[in-house]
Amino acid sequence: MTTIQTGTETQGQAHEPAAHPGPHGYSSQKAEHLKRLRRIEGQVRGLQRMVDEDVYCIDILTQVSASTKALQSFALSLLEEHLRHCVAAAAEEGGAELDAKVAEATAAISRLLRT
Amino acid sequence: MTTIQTGTETQGQAHEPAAHPGPHGYSSQKAEHLKRLRRIEGQVRGLQRMVDEDVYCIDILTQVSASTKALQSFALSLLEEHLRHCVAAAAEEGGAELDAKVAEATAAISRLLRT
Amino acid sequence: MTTIQTGTETQGQAHEPAAHPGPHGYSSQKAEHLKRLRRIEGQVRGLQRMVDEDVYCIDILTQVSASTKALQSFALSLLEEHLRHCVAAAAEEGGAELDAKVAEATAAISRLLRT
Amino acid sequence: MTTIQTGTETQGQAHEPAAHPGPHGYSSQKAEHLKRLRRIEGQVRGLQRMVDEDVYCIDILTQVSASTKALQSFALSLLEEHLRHCVAAAAEEGGAELDAKVAEATAAISRLLRT
Repeated sequence: MTTIQTGTETQGQAHEPAAHPGPHGYSSQKAEHLKRLRRIEGQVRGLQRMVDEDVYCIDILTQVSASTKALQSFALSLLEEHLRHCVAAAAEEGGAELDAKVAEATAAISRLLRT
Repeated sequence: MTTIQTGTETQGQAHEPAAHPGPHGYSSQKAEHLKRLRRIEGQVRGLQRMVDEDVYCIDILTQVSASTKALQSFALSLLEEHLRHCVAAAAEEGGAELDAKVAEATAAISRLLRT
Repeated sequence: MTTIQTGTETQGQAHEPAAHPGPHGYSSQKAEHLKRLRRIEGQVRGLQRMVDEDVYCIDILTQVSASTKALQSFALSLLEEHLRHCVAAAAEEGGAELDAKVAEATAAISRLLRT
Repeated sequence: MTTIQTGTETQGQAHEPAAHPGPHGYSSQKAEHLKRLRRIEGQVRGLQRMVDEDVYCIDILTQVSASTKALQSFALSLLEEHLRHCVAAAAEEGGAELDAKVAEATAAISRLLRT
């Protein structure tokens, strides 16, 4: 499934030692990310159960807060990897490339703040 | 459990007195709430797919923002019902009962803000 | 202006019927609210000083977070009073009046969440 | 009105070569940042006036949301500069230096999200 959609690059070979972080940097933590997301999926399913069983609203809201926090925590870990790999790579290019990546990351952070 | 995702379910019968607002006021919108939550569950599963397929981090972050927003939107609709039913009921009692309900609701809103 | 910060103020006289909560319920805590807001104003002025003195960005961001938190904390205390007084008063009227007040409060909470 | 309440400083002179970007990258936008912050200070003073004049709670909450949004918008512009300058500079060093800067930026973003 990790058939990374590389364009014309012969990246597969180049990257050979699969240990390396992959195209977007987050691949090394893929298992960790998937585990977090499955836990969040479980929380959302738990919310359905609570609604179905007429649990007291305030208790449901507490669980919503926990799920939102878990999602934001996941976003932060993804963002950290993104800064470490993609933005850092762009920094080596410098100029317009770096500006574009930084603007893109800032817009993503803005969306996280606004939700 | 929560065998809810049935389309043609005979749920109406199961819950029989479906008309009455239920213990916490939100029961009348139960079907609507469950629909929202199932959509959010689908979004979280979509996130897993994105991570699994090495989608670009920024695109994943955009989807996280959408899921967080959907969760907060669900929380707001639950909160609105809570204010309309539980807090209003406490207002009729007045005094300590009202104070307790308002403090409880405010604490829940604070948790939503802090996440 | 707003020479409010009197501790032992004779405000009681000024407002005569000191018992009643004032037009919007928050008047009884007016002095407290103004004290908070002046502290926040001081924080924002501190931010200007930090920028002016080229303080390290991350330290400025930490101070921004503190100011935002203080503003939200002020908002929550205002909201709590609003629920206790205005929404509770509307609950006695019931019906459309209550619905309108609850919808209005929910919209305000939504704006706080979205900022 | 830019008579920033600096103490006895002769800061104007001290900063003389105002053209250069300064130690943390944000100096080039210093004037812009200070203008934003003074506007926010004005908003917070407006809030005090509103409380003092017993303005309706919901209208005050709307103004709090605007101030919080303005603060977060300021934070984002500061963060963008920080990523462009400080994190990019660290990327050239690479290794531990980059990791430290990225972790520090992520922690700052986390604090902004949690407020």
